[in-house]
Amino acid sequence: MIENPFYTPEVQGAYELHGIGDLELEEGGTIPDLRLAVATYGTLNEAKDNAILIPTWFSGTHQTWELVYIGEGRALDPSQYFIVVVNQIGNGLSTSPHNTDGPVAMSKFPKVRVGDDVRAQEKLLREVFGIETLFAVLGGSMGAQQTWEWAVRFPGKVRRAAPIAGTAQNTPHDFLFTQALLDAITSDPGWNGGEYAANTEVDAGLRRHAGIWAVVGLSTEFWKTEFWRGIEVPDYRFTSMEDFQTNFIEAVFAAMDPNALLSMGWKWQRGDVARNTDGDLAKALGRITAKTFVMPIDEDMFFPPRDCAAEQALTPGSELRVLHTVAGHFGLFGFEQTYLDELDSHLKELFAADV
Amino acid sequence: MIENPFYTPEVQGAYELHGIGDLELEEGGTIPDLRLAVATYGTLNEAKDNAILIPTWFSGTHQTWELVYIGEGRALDPSQYFIVVVNQIGNGLSTSPHNTDGPVAMSKFPKVRVGDDVRAQEKLLREVFGIETLFAVLGGSMGAQQTWEWAVRFPGKVRRAAPIAGTAQNTPHDFLFTQALLDAITSDPGWNGGEYAANTEVDAGLRRHAGIWAVVGLSTEFWKTEFWRGIEVPDYRFTSMEDFQTNFIEAVFAAMDPNALLSMGWKWQRGDVARNTDGDLAKALGRITAKTFVMPIDEDMFFPPRDCAAEQALTPGSELRVLHTVAGHFGLFGFEQTYLDELDSHLKELFAADV
Repeated sequence: MIENPFYTPEVQGAYELHGIGDLELEEGGTIPDLRLAVATYGTLNEAKDNAILIPTWFSGTHQTWELVYIGEGRALDPSQYFIVVVNQIGNGLSTSPHNTDGPVAMSKFPKVRVGDDVRAQEKLLREVFGIETLFAVLGGSMGAQQTWEWAVRFPGKVRRAAPIAGTAQNTPHDFLFTQALLDAITSDPGWNGGEYAANTEVDAGLRRHAGIWAVVGLSTEFWKTEFWRGIEVPDYRFTSMEDFQTNFIEAVFAAMDPNALLSMGWKWQRGDVARNTDGDLAKALGRITAKTFVMPIDEDMFFPPRDCAAEQALTPGSELRVLHTVAGHFGLFGFEQTYLDELDSHLKELFAADV
Repeated sequence: MIENPFYTPEVQGAYELHGIGDLELEEGGTIPDLRLAVATYGTLNEAKDNAILIPTWFSGTHQTWELVYIGEGRALDPSQYFIVVVNQIGNGLSTSPHNTDGPVAMSKFPKVRVGDDVRAQEKLLREVFGIETLFAVLGGSMGAQQTWEWAVRFPGKVRRAAPIAGTAQNTPHDFLFTQALLDAITSDPGWNGGEYAANTEVDAGLRRHAGIWAVVGLSTEFWKTEFWRGIEVPDYRFTSMEDFQTNFIEAVFAAMDPNALLSMGWKWQRGDVARNTDGDLAKALGRITAKTFVMPIDEDMFFPPRDCAAEQALTPGSELRVLHTVAGHFGLFGFEQTYLDELDSHLKELFAADV
């Protein structure tokens, strides 16, 4: 067990840990006594039909959702909905390589798939909150992967779905991108096959990992326009590209746990709803009964709109709603108010839809 | 001096080495007795006004130009033009860290700028071939950087210019992309501060470098459509993405010299014609008198058309001609006949233009 201050309520905001028992994994093996880190906002109504599930993205936690997306008057309004943000398995808050002892600690952590997360979330919602049907499921990036998986695997339980900046079936380009990210970590001698004593021993690898994110996670125009000058952090103004790269992008990833990133990355590479239908993507997406808004980001370099549009075209009754932000995939962090307004507008329309 | 079979006429095709004396560098320092590796095609006419200069791109040599672009009936027709392909300094054939002894060997190789190459090329053309004026200058990627530099630095000597898939002023995104590429090499313990005994000692770093190229050098659609299935190499068919990645992209870069890539990469990051005009890009491009066709590739992820179009708009009398290939930046290798036909058509029009 490694103490990493990044994965604490002090840094991430409050959450609760819910043990949901042993989880048998699709790839084989078991996570004993899986704990899911969960943050909720609002109140579950008596009919238990106002619950919105939000699974998290690669390297993310519930925090961005709380700070950037959830609020009264917003689409994700806790005065109307019971919003449940579930940190994905291996993200550093839910059971993860560095925060557990015994048979699944560190390098012994088993391979987890998107389907494992979704089954665990379904059990959590049912057993802990008594929720059988979701008003909506939505998420960005790997959160979109989980959203798609929910809509395909449990069509009767999902009334509305909004996969944002992510695909139902991971693309070859995304596989290679993720591999480059993971190789940056595992090539650091400090990683030591996953048996390091602290994430700081893998600092160089984590920073190289961040360096690749800087190239593919944002957009050419983000850098050209020096958009980072407008990004506000407390008591600090970025004065150069190098400053932003070192003290924002690198600093964020350097605080994280290497094995957590590797666990999530392996999962991301293999996200594929067609596993439910013997490899037939059209058949998998054809199962969906949720009202679905598919929302890619226009400047996303690795989940480009055309890849999302192709899946949307296979999804009955769905609509394509392209979001606009110069921050590309990292637009998910809500750097642009216009993007947030656009997303809120689409979500409000989705939530108002009769289903 | 390291013997690397990749940098031989047997692998690269014939070339001649021309010593042009000591080259004083913009960053300080000198390359003593600089040798430029030069391949020529066709015959210089008596008026010496049919010469076309082609500088090479990052990691490239004259070979791709010879095999893919030059031929009778093509735009680059050796029966009409005297075509001079000059391998850029540090590319492994011209004077480079691994192929020289003494004061600039290996880690002691000085920093070289695009302007140094262009001055060396001007001297070569004048002193070795007696060429004062170029019918045209053209090149792809870093070859485009050198083309732009020629047109700005020596406007009286360049009658036509065709920068393909490259910019006059390197963008911030390109800087970060190149940095990620270079970090993949220098983070390999085998690199040893530039003092390895053979490129094979840096094999892991070179392959990670290749892994990042695979993500940004091609396009999402290249991978999704499995375009690699149609790429022909002698006696081999690629059977999977992993096969193509390992046995084509990684194999190509693993054969190269790490310090050569680092030298070119440093140069690429700092390409900027505005160095000629105290940082004023519009003023620099405003100097250009060559008839100029600016030719970005539609799917290029790091020299996107919008960046090239912005520079074209600042270039007097120039035209924007966007090329189309699903191979993205690596389309430069000529994987698609339609791309080659398109490029030839534009170049023929440029070459026919009265100037």
